[in-house]
Amino acid sequence: MQRWKLLIEYDGTPFVGWQRQDNGPSVQAALERAVKAFAQEERLVQCAGRTDAGVHALGQVAHVDIEKPVSALKLRDALNHHLKPDPVAVLTVEAVSQDFHARFSATGRAYLYRVLDRRAPPTLERGKVWHTGIRLDAEAMHAAAQALLGRHDFSSFRAAECQADSPIRTLDRVAVARVGEEVHLTIGARSFLHHQVRNIMGTLAMIGRGKRPIGFAGEVLAARDRTKAGPTAPPDGLYLTQITYDEAEC
Amino acid sequence: MQRWKLLIEYDGTPFVGWQRQDNGPSVQAALERAVKAFAQEERLVQCAGRTDAGVHALGQVAHVDIEKPVSALKLRDALNHHLKPDPVAVLTVEAVSQDFHARFSATGRAYLYRVLDRRAPPTLERGKVWHTGIRLDAEAMHAAAQALLGRHDFSSFRAAECQADSPIRTLDRVAVARVGEEVHLTIGARSFLHHQVRNIMGTLAMIGRGKRPIGFAGEVLAARDRTKAGPTAPPDGLYLTQITYDEAEC
Repeated sequence: MQRWKLLIEYDGTPFVGWQRQDNGPSVQAALERAVKAFAQEERLVQCAGRTDAGVHALGQVAHVDIEKPVSALKLRDALNHHLKPDPVAVLTVEAVSQDFHARFSATGRAYLYRVLDRRAPPTLERGKVWHTGIRLDAEAMHAAAQALLGRHDFSSFRAAECQADSPIRTLDRVAVARVGEEVHLTIGARSFLHHQVRNIMGTLAMIGRGKRPIGFAGEVLAARDRTKAGPTAPPDGLYLTQITYDEAEC
Repeated sequence: MQRWKLLIEYDGTPFVGWQRQDNGPSVQAALERAVKAFAQEERLVQCAGRTDAGVHALGQVAHVDIEKPVSALKLRDALNHHLKPDPVAVLTVEAVSQDFHARFSATGRAYLYRVLDRRAPPTLERGKVWHTGIRLDAEAMHAAAQALLGRHDFSSFRAAECQADSPIRTLDRVAVARVGEEVHLTIGARSFLHHQVRNIMGTLAMIGRGKRPIGFAGEVLAARDRTKAGPTAPPDGLYLTQITYDEAEC
């Protein structure tokens, strides 16, 4: 039995999310179907970051155990073959030890959130960005976001359904920058609460529109009260970009 | 009666092309429908570059005459409102004189062709890139393409259905460069023959794969024979990026 580490990209639009659910197609089910089609084995595919419905991934990581002997390159091509026509692709495959666990071995997670703030709606990027239609001040948003850096109680940015034991998280990196007609939020932490990135984005957008001052993000954080923050930004603009592991664990 | 110059972006995937046709939805029909919905006027919307089925535009230009009085900003927003849910957006609207003609006043056209040459298929960029799955040598392609610069008989790169009077065209700019996992061809001329960019891309890809030497592009050009060139690259990766006009004509 070999454990494989998979680097995965997907368009989250047609999926109910990563996790297998009864109410629609999931990324996990698509991958498990591909493993079964290739190896005739019923296997659990476990990921590092369980993305919600409509959320995309450029660098999701998952692991799966497969008995059938195969090389890494052959497995990658076979999974991609059987994943068609789902918009999920296995970018790389790597043999790892049984100690490796995509979720529990992960030491960092990074997300990108893309906002299109021009007046005209998106066409080629439809479903891939949050269209505000109102110009945002990216510099004000960047300045505001710095108050969230470090170890804090993020209750104000936590979804009611969040199942984490604690609302304490440590934000390692957060930056907002204009990229042409878009505003990009890039954010990194060991782990995130449910909806944390989308709730932070919703609050920063209020600051970007000039509806709230730069100090608002820090005030919301200090309040530890979800009702004080802005609305949850839509899933369309959110991308899981990178999962990091300590070298010894890969 | 006011003539309006429209800057237009669209996802070509669901369309039979720019031009109104009986066999499916077109970009032109979507825009004419929006004009009618806003102004209750039956108007012809004429573009600068009639893109084929599946070809995208980041900077298409068109003009339309409208009797109903309206400001440029109001017209842009109204057209975008009535264009929904078609993936077509009017980026800017500008009042122009009756001398302006989107097609005949144009003095330059520029295209981008995107190739994804990694092994794994596209997910988020599906329909937006040509996936070769085989690594291309962008530097060899760039060197090869330089033989096409200037005024030539482009019969070798001309579709059989091309309705232009002459196969002579002048290529002003052509460059190929690697951009991460993609190879981008950028190309500019006063005007192009039907399928000229896609046929050039098909030939350059043969060179990029190492199937033909760098001199092949120049040999194909000199042959003035369509059967000597590579296959027509798919529409997925092609974007009309810019139309230029002499300042006096705008």
